[in-house]
Amino acid sequence: MDKRFAVILAAGKGTRMKSKLYKVLHPVCGKPMVEHVADEVLKLSLAKLVTIVGHGAEDVKEQLGDRSEYALQEEQLGTAHAVKQAKSFLAKEKGTTIVICGDTPLLTAETMEAMLSEHQKHQAKVTILTARAEDPTGYGRIIRDETGAVVKIVEHKDANDAERQVNEINTGTYCFSNEDLFRVIEQVSNENAQGEYYLPDVIEILKNEGQTVAAYQTPHFEETLGVNDRIALSQAEQFMKRRINHQHMKNGVTLIDPENTYISPDAVIGEDTIIYPGTVIKGNVKIGTDATIGPNTEIVDSIIGDRTVIKQSVVCDSEVGVDVTIGPFAHIRPLSKIGNEVKIGNFVEIKKTVFGDRSKASHLSYIGDAEVGTDVNLGCGSITVNYDGKNKFLTKIEDGAFIGCNSNLVAPVTVGKGAYVAAGSTVTEDVPQDALSIARARQVNKEDYVKNIHKK
Amino acid sequence: MDKRFAVILAAGKGTRMKSKLYKVLHPVCGKPMVEHVADEVLKLSLAKLVTIVGHGAEDVKEQLGDRSEYALQEEQLGTAHAVKQAKSFLAKEKGTTIVICGDTPLLTAETMEAMLSEHQKHQAKVTILTARAEDPTGYGRIIRDETGAVVKIVEHKDANDAERQVNEINTGTYCFSNEDLFRVIEQVSNENAQGEYYLPDVIEILKNEGQTVAAYQTPHFEETLGVNDRIALSQAEQFMKRRINHQHMKNGVTLIDPENTYISPDAVIGEDTIIYPGTVIKGNVKIGTDATIGPNTEIVDSIIGDRTVIKQSVVCDSEVGVDVTIGPFAHIRPLSKIGNEVKIGNFVEIKKTVFGDRSKASHLSYIGDAEVGTDVNLGCGSITVNYDGKNKFLTKIEDGAFIGCNSNLVAPVTVGKGAYVAAGSTVTEDVPQDALSIARARQVNKEDYVKNIHKK
Amino acid sequence: MDKRFAVILAAGKGTRMKSKLYKVLHPVCGKPMVEHVADEVLKLSLAKLVTIVGHGAEDVKEQLGDRSEYALQEEQLGTAHAVKQAKSFLAKEKGTTIVICGDTPLLTAETMEAMLSEHQKHQAKVTILTARAEDPTGYGRIIRDETGAVVKIVEHKDANDAERQVNEINTGTYCFSNEDLFRVIEQVSNENAQGEYYLPDVIEILKNEGQTVAAYQTPHFEETLGVNDRIALSQAEQFMKRRINHQHMKNGVTLIDPENTYISPDAVIGEDTIIYPGTVIKGNVKIGTDATIGPNTEIVDSIIGDRTVIKQSVVCDSEVGVDVTIGPFAHIRPLSKIGNEVKIGNFVEIKKTVFGDRSKASHLSYIGDAEVGTDVNLGCGSITVNYDGKNKFLTKIEDGAFIGCNSNLVAPVTVGKGAYVAAGSTVTEDVPQDALSIARARQVNKEDYVKNIHKK
Repeated sequence: MDKRFAVILAAGKGTRMKSKLYKVLHPVCGKPMVEHVADEVLKLSLAKLVTIVGHGAEDVKEQLGDRSEYALQEEQLGTAHAVKQAKSFLAKEKGTTIVICGDTPLLTAETMEAMLSEHQKHQAKVTILTARAEDPTGYGRIIRDETGAVVKIVEHKDANDAERQVNEINTGTYCFSNEDLFRVIEQVSNENAQGEYYLPDVIEILKNEGQTVAAYQTPHFEETLGVNDRIALSQAEQFMKRRINHQHMKNGVTLIDPENTYISPDAVIGEDTIIYPGTVIKGNVKIGTDATIGPNTEIVDSIIGDRTVIKQSVVCDSEVGVDVTIGPFAHIRPLSKIGNEVKIGNFVEIKKTVFGDRSKASHLSYIGDAEVGTDVNLGCGSITVNYDGKNKFLTKIEDGAFIGCNSNLVAPVTVGKGAYVAAGSTVTEDVPQDALSIARARQVNKEDYVKNIHKK
Repeated sequence: MDKRFAVILAAGKGTRMKSKLYKVLHPVCGKPMVEHVADEVLKLSLAKLVTIVGHGAEDVKEQLGDRSEYALQEEQLGTAHAVKQAKSFLAKEKGTTIVICGDTPLLTAETMEAMLSEHQKHQAKVTILTARAEDPTGYGRIIRDETGAVVKIVEHKDANDAERQVNEINTGTYCFSNEDLFRVIEQVSNENAQGEYYLPDVIEILKNEGQTVAAYQTPHFEETLGVNDRIALSQAEQFMKRRINHQHMKNGVTLIDPENTYISPDAVIGEDTIIYPGTVIKGNVKIGTDATIGPNTEIVDSIIGDRTVIKQSVVCDSEVGVDVTIGPFAHIRPLSKIGNEVKIGNFVEIKKTVFGDRSKASHLSYIGDAEVGTDVNLGCGSITVNYDGKNKFLTKIEDGAFIGCNSNLVAPVTVGKGAYVAAGSTVTEDVPQDALSIARARQVNKEDYVKNIHKK
Repeated sequence: MDKRFAVILAAGKGTRMKSKLYKVLHPVCGKPMVEHVADEVLKLSLAKLVTIVGHGAEDVKEQLGDRSEYALQEEQLGTAHAVKQAKSFLAKEKGTTIVICGDTPLLTAETMEAMLSEHQKHQAKVTILTARAEDPTGYGRIIRDETGAVVKIVEHKDANDAERQVNEINTGTYCFSNEDLFRVIEQVSNENAQGEYYLPDVIEILKNEGQTVAAYQTPHFEETLGVNDRIALSQAEQFMKRRINHQHMKNGVTLIDPENTYISPDAVIGEDTIIYPGTVIKGNVKIGTDATIGPNTEIVDSIIGDRTVIKQSVVCDSEVGVDVTIGPFAHIRPLSKIGNEVKIGNFVEIKKTVFGDRSKASHLSYIGDAEVGTDVNLGCGSITVNYDGKNKFLTKIEDGAFIGCNSNLVAPVTVGKGAYVAAGSTVTEDVPQDALSIARARQVNKEDYVKNIHKK
């Protein structure tokens, strides 16, 4: 196999996005566009990847890190000018170079691999990735002769009536013989209306030299979508969502409504898990088998065990065991580790807490900066008072303890094994194992008090 | 009218579902596919329904119960082999037998009735339910002669080029002359690539005998969808959702977004009720007129009265009166009975409680295992302490009582009529009618305490 | 320019809506249909707008107010009869009169302006707004001669086979020479199957007089949708939603899923704000730049500052500053004014409260009828006890105060600057500046109590 190289064009500002964020950094399904492109192109066993950066250069570099080398395009003078910036990295190499835009997040490695095959089959100097568009208005058209060979690319505005009938369009992705690319790119001029150096001119020059110009037409037009505004961004989001969700369904996950389920490209979900609508799964999430998630649930960067049920809740940066039920309306905040067979009920917040197997916080509680043992029952309204206005302290509740309703555990404090805190108590000192702790006033009933008040 | 029989083919495992659950038991809009099929076919005044069970036989039987008889297909040797298992139930009967797959949950009784009419009109021995497919790839094609009579069914892989152009496809649903079906089914052989006994071979044999073979082409292609994987399952879910929602809109219910509203086939909803998006209604739900439900609300197996408003909340297995407002973020748990003109506000959980007319729990409360009278005001943070770690006890709050904020009512306990519990009290003994109950410490202000601390 | 007039037909009951609400008052994206129509038509610099009212006359008048004049159609005897009711307002005027139905909420001023241009260009006496329908079944067809001139409108039921092939349809919107309209409308008879006076008869009469009848065919068929039942209502809602969301995306707002985002026509949203799915924005809402809203959030009639994040929450009739985080599961109720850099966390309700800069209520609190200063920390479970069963009172918490967890502030009460309320206290008297207030019982631990109970 030829050595393979790739150049990602990622220097543009993207004025029509109307954004402070550089265009290629806008996320699709949570991942920046340029990262989708890099992830796919890197599947092609590249010898070298060069990303052309310009607007937001530092941010793009930070995003892709050392997966790519970078060439700076200080002024945006056109796509040929952009590719030329990679010269010092690539000019001496022999092999095939893919050029791809950083704003085409849907293009798959499979499609690029098919383009590369076509390129090799025809021993071409350049192969254009084309597609058939239902409405080709605005696209460059691929003009072929009667044998099917590519004659030229005509821009929409330069096309005659017959050419405008053609619906095979240039997607803006190419692969080139690397040597020829960098040899010929020097000849591209900017003598045109926009005063820009255009990459398709390379193709024309090669054609004029009598070199073989090939075209690979992908059947997946939707993959070639280039994102220039937020409307296209939302379309890319929809296509990517469908692709991701399709794969999960094939894997044996039930999505009640795949149109209304938003799953990160990095999520892994087990067989027979059911996801209800309105659910958003972001970042690195791993969900086991036979789980039930949603409706209207958000899970971010977390691990969820088998058979766990999470409804109308939010879980962030945490680990949840098997056979757990969470929600509705619960919030598991970062750095929590929920054991197995746990119940976290409605209006309960857990933060930075280890929560032992079979323990329960069924209602209206806040458990933060705590270690909760196994088989603990946290009554309704239990609160760990972990903050004194300056510092945060740890609460420890040992195995089998029972915390009465509306109790405050003022940290730092430990409730020992099997101990019992009476409802309504504010606990400021440690409770020994098996002790009852009580901290509340005795009840007084003032008879007829209400009746007398009404008389006044 | 001829006697009518039906055979549902429900023995398959459904490997492509990648599921422990047997294929025909996967739910569509909350109801197992095979039950959709049985419900529709039973509308046809059948003399007998036989369901062929195999994989998951016991589960399928349990699902359909005594609405069907069952024949066991121990090995899955093809559709003709499956039908043959019904022989002992049907072979001696005269009449018409519908054969339908348990994985076609969208097929309606109306369509089957139309097929039966066509069958009778032509005095046919078999009538095939066909449909026109936009993309017929993969389907068996219906080959007709110039008079329109059915010549044969050709499987996709056996079809020649001309036959592949045909887009009238075999849906896999048929009706047969019962006697002829069971006479001829004996002649079906398994000498084919898969080694299976195919039901369409019955048609070929009848045709060769010179019998009349008819076909009824339904205009509703989408009804004929067979579910073999979770992608098709999600499509069936979408079609069924649209059918259900369309009917509610015709009945005078406003659905702000029918694509994003998920209503059980068993729900009944009154005129002028408005349902906001993100709402999931499951099981047996009855909602009155002029109600407002959602957004993002889940209601399961409950009755909701006229003019009641439920927002961003969950209601399960309960009864809610008229002119009630619930939510946002409230949770009505099973076995609750909410009266009229009640207010259940944010972060309130009600469980197994009778809640009287005009009573209110406006914020942050848990009322479980309770009887709440009329005109009761439960202050913010009211909690029924119904569980001592071993048993659950009843709380009784009589008419007109006022429970102060952050109070605990430690069950078993009764707060009498018109009584008043002071904020922050933990009530462990009964409060007499019209009494004030108070159980809290007196306030002490330590002057300049904070200032002095900061000095240290 | 000719003087322009418009007549909105808004007298019908809309039986197929099955509603107590009069048809034209059904909202689309929160605004009654007739108001959409009036808002658009009023962009055309009208000299006079007359709305024909009948069913629900008073309600329609109240909705549109003095933006229109009103003519009462007591009996609904057809569209020509309806227009005739405007005679006393318009008959003496010279100019052009648009007639439009009150149930076509999607029609834009741009389209009507284009119709008016065509009208003027042809010096026509009447110009019909037409459109090309994919399925014209049920619509009146526009029959043109070989020169393209309009010959007549044929109703579907009266059309012959050739006429039924025509897919240019009558949208029911017209503009007329005002004088000719009111001259000729007298000649319209009700001698037809329905016994009604039909407005298209005016066109036939003018045609027979030899007057010029023009037609303007809009390319936007979807704009001409007339709403007669709730199914069409949901379609109108969808089209309007797409139109609104398209505009926000063009303006630089990211909508993760525009199909699942519901934004009022009156909302203003800043660049680089991101809106997650399941979000409902109603009424007059203004959101700043770089904000993050949703998922599953509802905002009604509120102002939200730059960079503010609101997740899984509800905000009504309030003002929220910049750099605020709200949610998940928070509820900001009417008349609240939230400062800058505030945190309102999970299960917190704020009502009629001024909440100062940098103050926090992070968990499980109810703050109502309160003035909260700057840099205040409200511990988990803080409750303002603002209601004694009869009256509501004010709570004042001054700058830098710290309220311990599970505290009750029994209003009217003031907690002074920098004061500290101990966890679990019920505060009934003012707390001086810098003081510590404590109101709770001392903790007692009964050793081995639990062990001894288990022994019994």
